[in-house]
Amino acid sequence: MGDDWVMASPKPVSEQSKTLKDSDGPLVSSAPSRALERFLLRRVLEAMGPPSFSVVLWDGFAIHPPSGEAIATAHIHTRNALIQLLRQGDTGFGEAFSRGEITVDGDLVDFLVAAFSVPQPEGVAKLVKQMQQRKPRANTQTGSRQNIHHHYDIGNDFYRLWLDAEMQYTCAYFPEADMTLEAAQQAKMDHICRKLQLQPGDRVAEAGCGWGGLARHMALYYGASVLSWNVSKEQVRYASDRAKAEGYDDRVTYVLDDYRNMSGEYDVFVSVGMLEHVGADNYPELGNVVDRCLTANGRALVHSIGRNRPRLMNAWIEKRIFPGAYPPTLREMMDIFEPHHFSVLDVENLRLHYALTLDEWLTRFDEHYETVVTQFDEEFARAWRLYLAGSQAAFLAGGLQLFQVLFTRERNNELPFSRGHLYV
Amino acid sequence: MGDDWVMASPKPVSEQSKTLKDSDGPLVSSAPSRALERFLLRRVLEAMGPPSFSVVLWDGFAIHPPSGEAIATAHIHTRNALIQLLRQGDTGFGEAFSRGEITVDGDLVDFLVAAFSVPQPEGVAKLVKQMQQRKPRANTQTGSRQNIHHHYDIGNDFYRLWLDAEMQYTCAYFPEADMTLEAAQQAKMDHICRKLQLQPGDRVAEAGCGWGGLARHMALYYGASVLSWNVSKEQVRYASDRAKAEGYDDRVTYVLDDYRNMSGEYDVFVSVGMLEHVGADNYPELGNVVDRCLTANGRALVHSIGRNRPRLMNAWIEKRIFPGAYPPTLREMMDIFEPHHFSVLDVENLRLHYALTLDEWLTRFDEHYETVVTQFDEEFARAWRLYLAGSQAAFLAGGLQLFQVLFTRERNNELPFSRGHLYV
Repeated sequence: MGDDWVMASPKPVSEQSKTLKDSDGPLVSSAPSRALERFLLRRVLEAMGPPSFSVVLWDGFAIHPPSGEAIATAHIHTRNALIQLLRQGDTGFGEAFSRGEITVDGDLVDFLVAAFSVPQPEGVAKLVKQMQQRKPRANTQTGSRQNIHHHYDIGNDFYRLWLDAEMQYTCAYFPEADMTLEAAQQAKMDHICRKLQLQPGDRVAEAGCGWGGLARHMALYYGASVLSWNVSKEQVRYASDRAKAEGYDDRVTYVLDDYRNMSGEYDVFVSVGMLEHVGADNYPELGNVVDRCLTANGRALVHSIGRNRPRLMNAWIEKRIFPGAYPPTLREMMDIFEPHHFSVLDVENLRLHYALTLDEWLTRFDEHYETVVTQFDEEFARAWRLYLAGSQAAFLAGGLQLFQVLFTRERNNELPFSRGHLYV
Repeated sequence: MGDDWVMASPKPVSEQSKTLKDSDGPLVSSAPSRALERFLLRRVLEAMGPPSFSVVLWDGFAIHPPSGEAIATAHIHTRNALIQLLRQGDTGFGEAFSRGEITVDGDLVDFLVAAFSVPQPEGVAKLVKQMQQRKPRANTQTGSRQNIHHHYDIGNDFYRLWLDAEMQYTCAYFPEADMTLEAAQQAKMDHICRKLQLQPGDRVAEAGCGWGGLARHMALYYGASVLSWNVSKEQVRYASDRAKAEGYDDRVTYVLDDYRNMSGEYDVFVSVGMLEHVGADNYPELGNVVDRCLTANGRALVHSIGRNRPRLMNAWIEKRIFPGAYPPTLREMMDIFEPHHFSVLDVENLRLHYALTLDEWLTRFDEHYETVVTQFDEEFARAWRLYLAGSQAAFLAGGLQLFQVLFTRERNNELPFSRGHLYV
């Protein structure tokens, strides 16, 4: 397979890379790359099969795809970054990229799709990859609060820069691919309310409510009465303040507490984008919560990022962005449903909708890049850019899925005979 | 709980029961029931919780529901039937009902729904129930042929009596509840073709084709070119003869062989009502077959009776009607998809549609009851009547589900952004 790769001799550091010297710290190594480093890099790329991008080291040593046409070029500006990449894989790439010691010329998403579209490593490379993976941080009630605080309490102003007006931080629904993000987030909420056959007066329990947009939508447009649980202080404060200011706090209550402490009886249970943070060990307990709260003919929906096969969250994202996160397979999700004989009525996979959503978020993020750097710093901005681009790439390459699962109790016979009511 | 039951003393054998004496054999016992028998019967009924039907023994001893309003009455006409019922549960009931030693006054489906709607047995009763269950007959290639022969090769004339004109022996689709069976079977085939986005010229591989109706539909109305595998000689002969007579045998080929021997490359893989006969052990092999045959952007659909939790097929149905049959949970079905990273795009549960379908079949079956008795005998007719009514009851009570699962390869990005095209 070595023949698939075209090597170029070391050259002087490129103009593009040089500009990085303006940043803090020694961002470009000066000593030439060593034969062993070049050998290992070539081995890693060979193990990936023939990708379609180029890799250029700090001294100009380059590996190009055999076709000669690279869709993007990854520049590794320091020896430190190369070693980290070789040792830690995805995590090393993420860390070095965040520090600016790896940069990508060309479209970052295209590059990451190409990087994700290589075969899984075999043999020794596979063992190394498995050893790099760890168990995600525990989602005990204390652990969950810390994990959620890490991600969601970094400031509503930050999320406002690139989310829609309703602050929906979950997959939108684009029945028409050319919809705006705003319209697609509204369409997502309507799609969910229709699946749940939401009626005026319905009592809704929501587990994980983000900034409260879905609860608001259910109350204002469907006449429901909603209780929403969330362990993020900043999100609950934002949602509660807004409900009071806009005058529907009689119909929506945001509860700063863990979903495991839910109580009461409800016609509808809904959870959008929380399951990723629940952890597979806790699915039976989530099932118990639904069973405790749902009426005999109640309807329930879980919306979550998922996988086609069991795999931990990308190690770097789990470490830096989403501690404790784990996207389940459909098989793993059955631990919520089977113990209570819940009947799965409808599963819809919205994978490409999340790619479109992330494309919108990344575009808005890039438009406000300088503001993010000002609010935080360069490293934060680069890390979040990689996270948004990498997630989009994973949905495009099929590594991530988005499952919406509608379910009810086994004996509920009040079911519509067609899903046509979702499409009128 | 004994207080929930109202006992009546033994009375002379009822008029209704007496008429059974006209049939062959000693169908009504003459000796009075014994205290022990009445005690055991009461215990079994108590363990079931308070059902809504009455039970009357051959000597007139009766147990009525506490409400006094019985939705139906089960008459146990012989000591032999009572002992078989107590010893073998569902199987004993099925055997004694088939022989006419148990009859039911009132709607048989209502009675069976009530019988299915009792809690699962606990303690000793549960252990006894588990001991009664056996592993279904193996579905090796030889085993499958025998199992399928048992059910499907008992004569096309028999099935013609109560199936629709296209001989669809799988769940129909009633987007409107008042559709005819004929229209609902057409709607089912169109629903599947739309889910698969079937286009003119598409090459389709079908695993388990029944009497060939779906293959015929795909060729005639969608311009597809179909190869259909089936191990039932009678079905393949019927389907092939019809294709030749009606002049589309250039577009549809029915292959008398096991799905495991499928070869070729196809844009579409479809299997409607076969998975129930595949057996959970063979799901990985079915996944291999799909992986071997499906193009990069091919679409695949599996339609199967299923369960909300793992449970063997009703023992009597497995013994008398469907040897080797096993309805899987969604979790178990994942053994088809996960090893090949297939992406599940859409799961639709059509449970109540199967109840409607069975209601139509049972009505037509009853209209031709005397013909069935003439073609076979009383015992066969009673057994099939119980099977159709019991299946309907199981779908109504939630013990059985009907899952339609659409899936593709992980990297296929040619997906519609909405399922709206199914509902135009």
